[in-house]
Amino acid sequence: MDKNRLIELQRIYRDGLLNDTLPFWLKSCVDREHGGFTFMLNRDGSLMDTDKGVWQQGRFTWLLGTLYNKWEKRPEWLELAHHGIEFMEKHAFDTDGRMFFHLDKEGNPIRKRRYVFSESFAVIAYAAYSKASGEKWAGEKAHQIWEMIMHILHTPGMLPPKFTDHRQTKGLALPMTLLVTAQQLRENLGDNGYSKTIDTLIERINLHWMKNEFSAVLETVGMNGEFIDHFDGRMLNPGHSIELAWFLLRESEYRNNDPKIQAMGLKILDWMWEWGWDKEYGGITYFKDVKNYPPQEYWHDMKFWWPQSEAIIATLMAYRLSGNKKYAEWHKMIHDWTYKHFPDPEFGEWYGYLHRDGRVSVPSKGNLWKGPFHIPRMQMICADECGKML
Amino acid sequence: MDKNRLIELQRIYRDGLLNDTLPFWLKSCVDREHGGFTFMLNRDGSLMDTDKGVWQQGRFTWLLGTLYNKWEKRPEWLELAHHGIEFMEKHAFDTDGRMFFHLDKEGNPIRKRRYVFSESFAVIAYAAYSKASGEKWAGEKAHQIWEMIMHILHTPGMLPPKFTDHRQTKGLALPMTLLVTAQQLRENLGDNGYSKTIDTLIERINLHWMKNEFSAVLETVGMNGEFIDHFDGRMLNPGHSIELAWFLLRESEYRNNDPKIQAMGLKILDWMWEWGWDKEYGGITYFKDVKNYPPQEYWHDMKFWWPQSEAIIATLMAYRLSGNKKYAEWHKMIHDWTYKHFPDPEFGEWYGYLHRDGRVSVPSKGNLWKGPFHIPRMQMICADECGKML
Repeated sequence: MDKNRLIELQRIYRDGLLNDTLPFWLKSCVDREHGGFTFMLNRDGSLMDTDKGVWQQGRFTWLLGTLYNKWEKRPEWLELAHHGIEFMEKHAFDTDGRMFFHLDKEGNPIRKRRYVFSESFAVIAYAAYSKASGEKWAGEKAHQIWEMIMHILHTPGMLPPKFTDHRQTKGLALPMTLLVTAQQLRENLGDNGYSKTIDTLIERINLHWMKNEFSAVLETVGMNGEFIDHFDGRMLNPGHSIELAWFLLRESEYRNNDPKIQAMGLKILDWMWEWGWDKEYGGITYFKDVKNYPPQEYWHDMKFWWPQSEAIIATLMAYRLSGNKKYAEWHKMIHDWTYKHFPDPEFGEWYGYLHRDGRVSVPSKGNLWKGPFHIPRMQMICADECGKML
Repeated sequence: MDKNRLIELQRIYRDGLLNDTLPFWLKSCVDREHGGFTFMLNRDGSLMDTDKGVWQQGRFTWLLGTLYNKWEKRPEWLELAHHGIEFMEKHAFDTDGRMFFHLDKEGNPIRKRRYVFSESFAVIAYAAYSKASGEKWAGEKAHQIWEMIMHILHTPGMLPPKFTDHRQTKGLALPMTLLVTAQQLRENLGDNGYSKTIDTLIERINLHWMKNEFSAVLETVGMNGEFIDHFDGRMLNPGHSIELAWFLLRESEYRNNDPKIQAMGLKILDWMWEWGWDKEYGGITYFKDVKNYPPQEYWHDMKFWWPQSEAIIATLMAYRLSGNKKYAEWHKMIHDWTYKHFPDPEFGEWYGYLHRDGRVSVPSKGNLWKGPFHIPRMQMICADECGKML
């Protein structure tokens, strides 16, 4: 990558975040009456549904706190992060300490789920906010929720299984989420045993989910990493494991460019790029079957916003850390395809759900799953990546 | 519809069932080693996954028993229905009397769900098999499972809610399933209070799910039929309510052409055809939002096999019962579009999941959701409809 390209990319990511993504959301999402954020915005930014997803409350609060910590001490960002924390404090926790998944605009609970993802996004939100505000209690609370998650995961029976005992399975999403959550805790609160947990997670992922015989990272395996030759066990989610790849690359850098962890991250990226990149239409495909059967999921060939965002980060970071030009080429492929098809030139921000060939399927901008997270996180990290290379 | 067209249609449906659909499945799906049926077949009929969905065990057993009862006393069909019943008897019931959702090939339970749909499909299977075989115990068991379903639904707390008390909702799938299950019980066992239950269900659907202000049948409403102005409450599934339309038309015919029930069925068909028919590409669209927002479900514009099958039945039955030529035109539109895009000319049977424009998305023929049910049921009913008109 020459200097001009890097300057241009840095501008695209930075301006995209500050002049497109953030203004699009902030124009309509801050609920000054009931607190928190309403993210279910239509294409033009108008509100389609006043409900509040708990994942997105935590994720946006994390983003605001992190921008404040790493980019600029804008009082607006700190105030908004406080606004998010305040709403979660009031409404997102059930009496058992667990968190809800879905609230209405007043904060009344609509749905609670068995998984610990609401909790993980709250951990990173509280940790980033604590560092930004200097409020120690928020850091303590982040660590407390983290300990609760660990307790739930390590106490048999506390997390009701989706399947029967006869075929117990475990998903990649859990160790991945714990890994990035521990990284955030360490970054914002200092290393309170988090690196040790990360060691264990990396070892476990390597042993149980990475399969040399398929050159692939599986999503669902048996309790001891067994390959499960059924639809769920064969399913690959390339964007998801490409996200894991850059979590590992970032970890390798934190550890003075640990060559083993870096190699693991690059291997995953190499494997899953091969599975995910759509050679016919471009972009990262949602699902593949590791035995090349048709996937059970009928939306398997769609292009979602987040796998593209994660691949943009992973390829750029891989290029900076390894110097291998292949990654610069891949980055150009995924960056160009994504920026050609996802941004909405009329109303700003990106569409979330495209057909395989890049045509828009759902024109709205937000729902329970899509909010200001994957895109601005990519813009923030990639602007920084360009900065480091410059 | 002139006589030649009806003869041609009758041939298409009857031959399709006897010479395409049934042979495609029967070639590979009967598990003589472990019992039951394996339906997860690839495009060419080869087995992709040995697991067994309980819905499909019940549905195929029902089909075989019903063909025996209504079409022809083929010993093969009775033997296969017995084969299905035997497997369900051995493996599909949990110790609490409830049923599993997903078994492995040996019949070990993989997943149990909170809903009562496995149970409803078992009811129709046992009822049809009882009539076909003359085995009274199977009819008694059908009624017993039916009573258990009613007990579960009418005892607060027995069906764990998906959402919190704060916004309790109820779905159209439940009264629809009960309605068609009661019709099947009555047909095969005689009227043991089933018509009275059907009266209540029809009244309830009319009061709570049909909304004149939207000219639409909603999928999810509040406990007293309130419109819920959020994604779930606004969601329309036109193929689903078109299926309801013909359940009602059939009920009106059973009741000496009851004009009120017939009018309700035709109204639903008129409403939901308008919502569902894709004026640009043809076929019935999966989801719409009643306020015309983009649906949250990203596969909203795909064309699935079953909404088309249900619309073929509903339009043909509506034409026969009402004599209104509009329905003959609609039937031609949906029949022609479906038969142009869904059948697989090379290996037989139909694809299940097409893109909006009719291109294939998933080429396989079976999974947990798609098996020999909607297509052969449509072929059986529509061949009979043509027969009645001839």
